[in-house]
Amino acid sequence: MTRQVHLNAMFHTAGEHLVGWRHPSSPADPSLDLAYATRLVQRAEAARFDALFLADLTGIPDSKPSVLERVAVTNDSFEPITLLAALAAVTSRIGLVATASSSYNEPYTVARAFASLDHISGGRAGWNLVTSLNDSEARNFGYDTHLLHADRYRRAEEFYDVVEGLWDSFDDDAFVHDAASGRYFDPERIHRLDHRGERFRVAGPLNVPRPPQGRPVIAQAGASEPGRALAARIGEIVFIAGGGLEGSREQYADLKARAAALGRDPDGLLVLPALSPIVAPTRAEAEDRFAELEALLDPVVALGDLEYWLGGVDLTRYDLDGPLPELPPSNKSVSTAERIYTEARASGLSIRQFAKASSATNDRYTIGTPTDIADHIEEWSTTGAADGFNVVFAQLPDTLDAFADLVIPELQRRGLFRTEYEGTTLREHLGLARPASRWAA
Amino acid sequence: MTRQVHLNAMFHTAGEHLVGWRHPSSPADPSLDLAYATRLVQRAEAARFDALFLADLTGIPDSKPSVLERVAVTNDSFEPITLLAALAAVTSRIGLVATASSSYNEPYTVARAFASLDHISGGRAGWNLVTSLNDSEARNFGYDTHLLHADRYRRAEEFYDVVEGLWDSFDDDAFVHDAASGRYFDPERIHRLDHRGERFRVAGPLNVPRPPQGRPVIAQAGASEPGRALAARIGEIVFIAGGGLEGSREQYADLKARAAALGRDPDGLLVLPALSPIVAPTRAEAEDRFAELEALLDPVVALGDLEYWLGGVDLTRYDLDGPLPELPPSNKSVSTAERIYTEARASGLSIRQFAKASSATNDRYTIGTPTDIADHIEEWSTTGAADGFNVVFAQLPDTLDAFADLVIPELQRRGLFRTEYEGTTLREHLGLARPASRWAA
Repeated sequence: MTRQVHLNAMFHTAGEHLVGWRHPSSPADPSLDLAYATRLVQRAEAARFDALFLADLTGIPDSKPSVLERVAVTNDSFEPITLLAALAAVTSRIGLVATASSSYNEPYTVARAFASLDHISGGRAGWNLVTSLNDSEARNFGYDTHLLHADRYRRAEEFYDVVEGLWDSFDDDAFVHDAASGRYFDPERIHRLDHRGERFRVAGPLNVPRPPQGRPVIAQAGASEPGRALAARIGEIVFIAGGGLEGSREQYADLKARAAALGRDPDGLLVLPALSPIVAPTRAEAEDRFAELEALLDPVVALGDLEYWLGGVDLTRYDLDGPLPELPPSNKSVSTAERIYTEARASGLSIRQFAKASSATNDRYTIGTPTDIADHIEEWSTTGAADGFNVVFAQLPDTLDAFADLVIPELQRRGLFRTEYEGTTLREHLGLARPASRWAA
Repeated sequence: MTRQVHLNAMFHTAGEHLVGWRHPSSPADPSLDLAYATRLVQRAEAARFDALFLADLTGIPDSKPSVLERVAVTNDSFEPITLLAALAAVTSRIGLVATASSSYNEPYTVARAFASLDHISGGRAGWNLVTSLNDSEARNFGYDTHLLHADRYRRAEEFYDVVEGLWDSFDDDAFVHDAASGRYFDPERIHRLDHRGERFRVAGPLNVPRPPQGRPVIAQAGASEPGRALAARIGEIVFIAGGGLEGSREQYADLKARAAALGRDPDGLLVLPALSPIVAPTRAEAEDRFAELEALLDPVVALGDLEYWLGGVDLTRYDLDGPLPELPPSNKSVSTAERIYTEARASGLSIRQFAKASSATNDRYTIGTPTDIADHIEEWSTTGAADGFNVVFAQLPDTLDAFADLVIPELQRRGLFRTEYEGTTLREHLGLARPASRWAA
């Protein structure tokens, strides 16, 4: 039997393309409309996606004001965990994965929120652990600048250990609710963590019973050296991006090997490259749709997005018709900056051309017919580049509707994707075992 | 026209009585059942309550294990903000008030969560600011003991100022969504807070648009001197407890006078005494129902609850058949401890008798017929003791169902309570003005 792929739907309600909100088919005011968010997630659930995934920042991105005022990003959206809790009440099967930062939160708070979301959703929660990107995020939490890259990954490692430990506070069968004897829970089946580490002191226990999934599913997207190390240790779904088919194969093999070296079953770490499909019945129509989106991307936004990912540099101080210079290392996403330099050198384009042709997300567009997109998915997932895809919806509702209407049936026809949910929890959708508590036997 | 009262429904799904979960009519496993929580909040909405209110702790209470294992409290419940977000999706009118601690959170995180809940619910969110109670809560956040009473109130004052400032980050009309020009928001209508205070440095802006209510409704329950000062400055619904009719009149007058002295309209601060009704068609039936609940309260739990509110003392070191001694000051709720000493002295009861007869919540039971309860509500609300009530539901679903079936119609008949919601936001239910942004005009 063909091994099926896992599909994760990534969007916020204004779409992931920086200026997709300007497209005539986008709703006039999509960002804070719960009915619209409900319609989107129910569409993704009807298409049998494994999960909805929401990215997040803990502040306004530190882009130039002239860029910021033109993009939707996350400046006017719901906070992800509260939004997913609301969407849990109007869905029954689709997984619900929210991003939360280990740099600007307390582990007890994060453990509790995701445990609660897992209970509210009947075992459909996932946590995408990020270390954040922007100085502007840090400045909302008492810091002057963002934690240094290495420091924030060391914090992330310890942060995760605390959260995982807190989720095991109560044994699965701790609550006995014995009205006759008056015993509500069994104190033998509750455990204090008493964590005392380099950065955190957390006693526990967590005041939420063990989550239905044992632990919410852990998503990770670190691609730098410490990022891959963290993903290999804790990641259950790992988002990768960039480098095309060969680059994905390298990352796929590396992540699986690292997981195995740590004693994990490599099948317990699912690698999901980004895929941003622009699909239409014919290639010409798909190219037209892509051209419509790109026409909305003015040079100020394109350059600003490049500056953002390179760590807040001002590229207008360089010759925009010359090549992209090597700049001081970024403290944002180290791996994204490295990828941009590699691609810019290989392209031979000027700064201005490269910014327009290949902003950080553009390398992920896959444009074509349903057959083209299904071929891409089949090739990548059968040749060691992917266990599935993090499907990024550039502009809503159109790219989601088109994918659900055109690509999903083609994948199902090929036996590459489920036609019905077989389980009820996100772990079941992903084929991931329910972890035993550290205190079990 | 009779001035109508405001009714706030306080419960968690296992009921507020310490051992109400043991009653034969309580569900076997109520605490983590979203369908059951939905049934309860929809019942409260059908009865036209102003709001549902959820208390909270950021840890397991530091009661003795022998007590803890017998009570429901918040050890196995949903986290309040995620629960209210889920319940927002299945209700349309009732206000949704969650507790969040200013001692063990970051103001940016709290501002964002409540702004998001206000957007998700279409303007129905409220924030009950507490300073927390337990050393066990502090130990989940890197502290050895709970912040000292005075310190945590100073922190609460600054914490609130930061949150309020963050809610004003975007002007109400900041988002223009002008697809033609490509301008998503107007940078003239976004404001950085740049707060640099004694305890917090928070730059802002908040990455959520201004809440539909301008600011979520602020609830407060501080009754000590710094607690009353905080409530007078920021509280819009203020929960009070204890002291009977006279005590409530004193607190009511004091809070209104303090608010007026600060230049506030006293009608913008609504005082809601606690009311825990045990109602039945006849007094004998109501007394029977109360006796059933009290019979479940064994001496270990009763004594443990008293010890808890006195700050974790061990009363078994004293003669339980003697009077309650004066003990070292509590760093928990200073006002609750003072109230207990006052009541214990006035009662003339032994420790054992007092614990059983009058645990911290017991003074709030009002037992009787629908007419009795309505008389209580009418007297208190027309003689300067209450603008409404924080109705505490001891045991679920019975005490809620009985109140909705029997008392609400009687209040409506007397013109004391709404028969339909007239507005859609919590501020509209409460008759509170929508605050202008600090940046307006």
